[in-house]
Amino acid sequence: MTKKVASRANAISPFHVMDILSQAKQLEAAGQNIIHMEVGEPDFDTPQPIIEAGMHALKQGKTHYTPACGLPELREAIADWYEQQYEVKVNAERIIVTPGASGALLLVMGALLEKQKQVLLADPGYPCNKHFARFVEGRVTSIPVDANNQYQLTAQHIEQYWDDNTAMALVASPSNPTGTVLTQPDLKELAAAVASKSGHLVVDEIYHGLTYDGFHAPTALSVSDQVFVVNSFSKFFGMTGWRLGWLVVPEGYTEVMDKLAQNLFLAPMTMSQYAALAAFQPNTLAILEQRRQAFERRRNTLLPLLKDIGFSIPITPQGAFYLYADCSVLLNEQIPDSMALSRYLLNQAGVAITPGLDFGHHQAESHCRFAYTRDESLLIDAAERIQRVMIG
Amino acid sequence: MTKKVASRANAISPFHVMDILSQAKQLEAAGQNIIHMEVGEPDFDTPQPIIEAGMHALKQGKTHYTPACGLPELREAIADWYEQQYEVKVNAERIIVTPGASGALLLVMGALLEKQKQVLLADPGYPCNKHFARFVEGRVTSIPVDANNQYQLTAQHIEQYWDDNTAMALVASPSNPTGTVLTQPDLKELAAAVASKSGHLVVDEIYHGLTYDGFHAPTALSVSDQVFVVNSFSKFFGMTGWRLGWLVVPEGYTEVMDKLAQNLFLAPMTMSQYAALAAFQPNTLAILEQRRQAFERRRNTLLPLLKDIGFSIPITPQGAFYLYADCSVLLNEQIPDSMALSRYLLNQAGVAITPGLDFGHHQAESHCRFAYTRDESLLIDAAERIQRVMIG
Ligand SMILES: Cc1ncc(COP(=O)(O)O)c(C=O)c1O
Ligand SMILES: Cc1ncc(COP(=O)(O)O)c(C=O)c1O
Repeated sequence: MTKKVASRANAISPFHVMDILSQAKQLEAAGQNIIHMEVGEPDFDTPQPIIEAGMHALKQGKTHYTPACGLPELREAIADWYEQQYEVKVNAERIIVTPGASGALLLVMGALLEKQKQVLLADPGYPCNKHFARFVEGRVTSIPVDANNQYQLTAQHIEQYWDDNTAMALVASPSNPTGTVLTQPDLKELAAAVASKSGHLVVDEIYHGLTYDGFHAPTALSVSDQVFVVNSFSKFFGMTGWRLGWLVVPEGYTEVMDKLAQNLFLAPMTMSQYAALAAFQPNTLAILEQRRQAFERRRNTLLPLLKDIGFSIPITPQGAFYLYADCSVLLNEQIPDSMALSRYLLNQAGVAITPGLDFGHHQAESHCRFAYTRDESLLIDAAERIQRVMIG
Repeated sequence: MTKKVASRANAISPFHVMDILSQAKQLEAAGQNIIHMEVGEPDFDTPQPIIEAGMHALKQGKTHYTPACGLPELREAIADWYEQQYEVKVNAERIIVTPGASGALLLVMGALLEKQKQVLLADPGYPCNKHFARFVEGRVTSIPVDANNQYQLTAQHIEQYWDDNTAMALVASPSNPTGTVLTQPDLKELAAAVASKSGHLVVDEIYHGLTYDGFHAPTALSVSDQVFVVNSFSKFFGMTGWRLGWLVVPEGYTEVMDKLAQNLFLAPMTMSQYAALAAFQPNTLAILEQRRQAFERRRNTLLPLLKDIGFSIPITPQGAFYLYADCSVLLNEQIPDSMALSRYLLNQAGVAITPGLDFGHHQAESHCRFAYTRDESLLIDAAERIQRVMIG
């Protein structure tokens, strides 16, 4: 079937995990039990106080459009959050509420990335980023990163890869798929390097709040007021289905974002915005802290089990809910790469994971991602199943 | 302040009505009473059965991501709606649930409009369309339309304006700002003309359901299975703040839309989707029919009042909730154009309307849009106020 679509649309290959997912569904339909470790969202439902705030808003008839940049009181609440969590003062005017971090990424790419100009991205990294860039006819420079640089872009990368066609760099801390975190000095060096090129630095902080070992990820806003920060209510706040995120912009950029948001989105979801006001309440935060601790326990449980099986995880990730594992030792002629391994583990062990190819090309065929978005007991079960089919 | 933003973002001029709106806010803060006739959303809250379905979904913990194309049961319900309303069979696979018609327009432009290629648009028309096109680095050919062609693109326009760089045409029926409706023969001719160019026809049917005089707008799907249809729960169903719409694609296009939607949106808002399942229930439809009748009464009330004042409305619109009025007779040296008139009516009469410039350039300075999204009594009050300051 030759359909006439734009080349930007043709250029998108489906996520490899979609293959895994649809096969998992078939197996489940046939009665098999599958442990899903491919899912990039918390297994917990949204905390009750947020749900109640949402229902209250509906009862009050909060069903109309809001301003394109979001409810003023939510922008204020997010500004307060920066002060309370990070001791960083951010004017509420600088905060643009968006339909998820997805909306924020689309907005910031659309606003900053001139057509044909390049954005620097870490490989491996969040798979949608390159498609946001391509959607607005920008170009991507994928920079291979590995355990030596904590799977993160560094100031040296900026020096090495920036050229006249580069407009911006995008990093994520904690990162998806690797869970590694940029420290304040890392961020400072990165921001300085990008500033020295008169470029833009965008930092995706969607996994903020989900950090472990007593570590708190610093926000890029604490090192520079010229960075663009993407965030979301999806992960730490447990609100994936509510489609609500935000973008923090430097002073002077609100107007252009407002114009773009008016045209692209009209406004973010109204009831979600009222509900999100409850996300910062002490009773909600207490629930979120318990969940954070649960994620930390899960990581601590799963990590040694995977290592025992032979997966190599050279860096213990300090954030997010992912383990990015080198599976080289487990590959062989029958299972030549991580995609084959993902298929094998699904079919033989009933465990669904995400092959590295979904996050880029650099060493992708020898890596895969485990999401610990399942109960500890399930994680243990999954590790046992894998152990059984891989080692016996 | 020279900020470095992409030219596509710089190219967007703010909506003129934003000026009117912010001035209206100042006047209101100073205690003045303003009648808002610039607002493109129903004044009614979302019907109660939909709200209750939303609350029920929240109670059940429906707070996670859904598939990118939407809940299968909602896609089925929309397909059933086409059968029930229009006697048109549409496979549910062809329906992509999106974050509003806004999301559907972004998706369809991104999928179909090659960079530098052109989309044909009616002028006047919905202002965001040209920015969706520009967002993906497409180009726009604005085609002046007027009362002689019902303010709609015709097959003749397609013949006249299509060239080698044209990829698609986009029309809206009922239209914003004019409220005019394309008949089945109109649609058939348009679809045939675009097909003869091997191009794509997109029909925005967001105001379907809001039609008057016993008239029902035919869906473009009834004349061709090769058109792309945009729709939304915003207007007829009264769900603006819920950010939910859909796109119907020809057989064979689902996969490419799914890939794009996965990357751009991840998924539409979960709770909105469950709530929308209640939009098609008989008790909801009964409420919507009452509201439709209220809109019809409002149109019938406002239209002669505006004509009495001197506004010329050559075509009685059969749909939407707008009157697009020629104000030439009311212009003079002090009030040279429709933007000046909008300012004057706001300041002198406390009535907010939208100047024609927000919808294009063709005769924009002698036209303005009245939204009858207010109670009949307010519409009468507004007309009296305008009468007083314009005529005395
Ligand atoms: C790094 C990263 N950024 C952005 C997103 C988008 O999330 P949302 O649109 O739900 O806020 C995700 C989702 O998985 C992510 O992992
Ligand atoms: C013609 C037309 N299309 C699309 C939209 C977008 O509406 P929504 O995104 O709320 O569905 C509007 C809103 O005013 C409109 O008038």
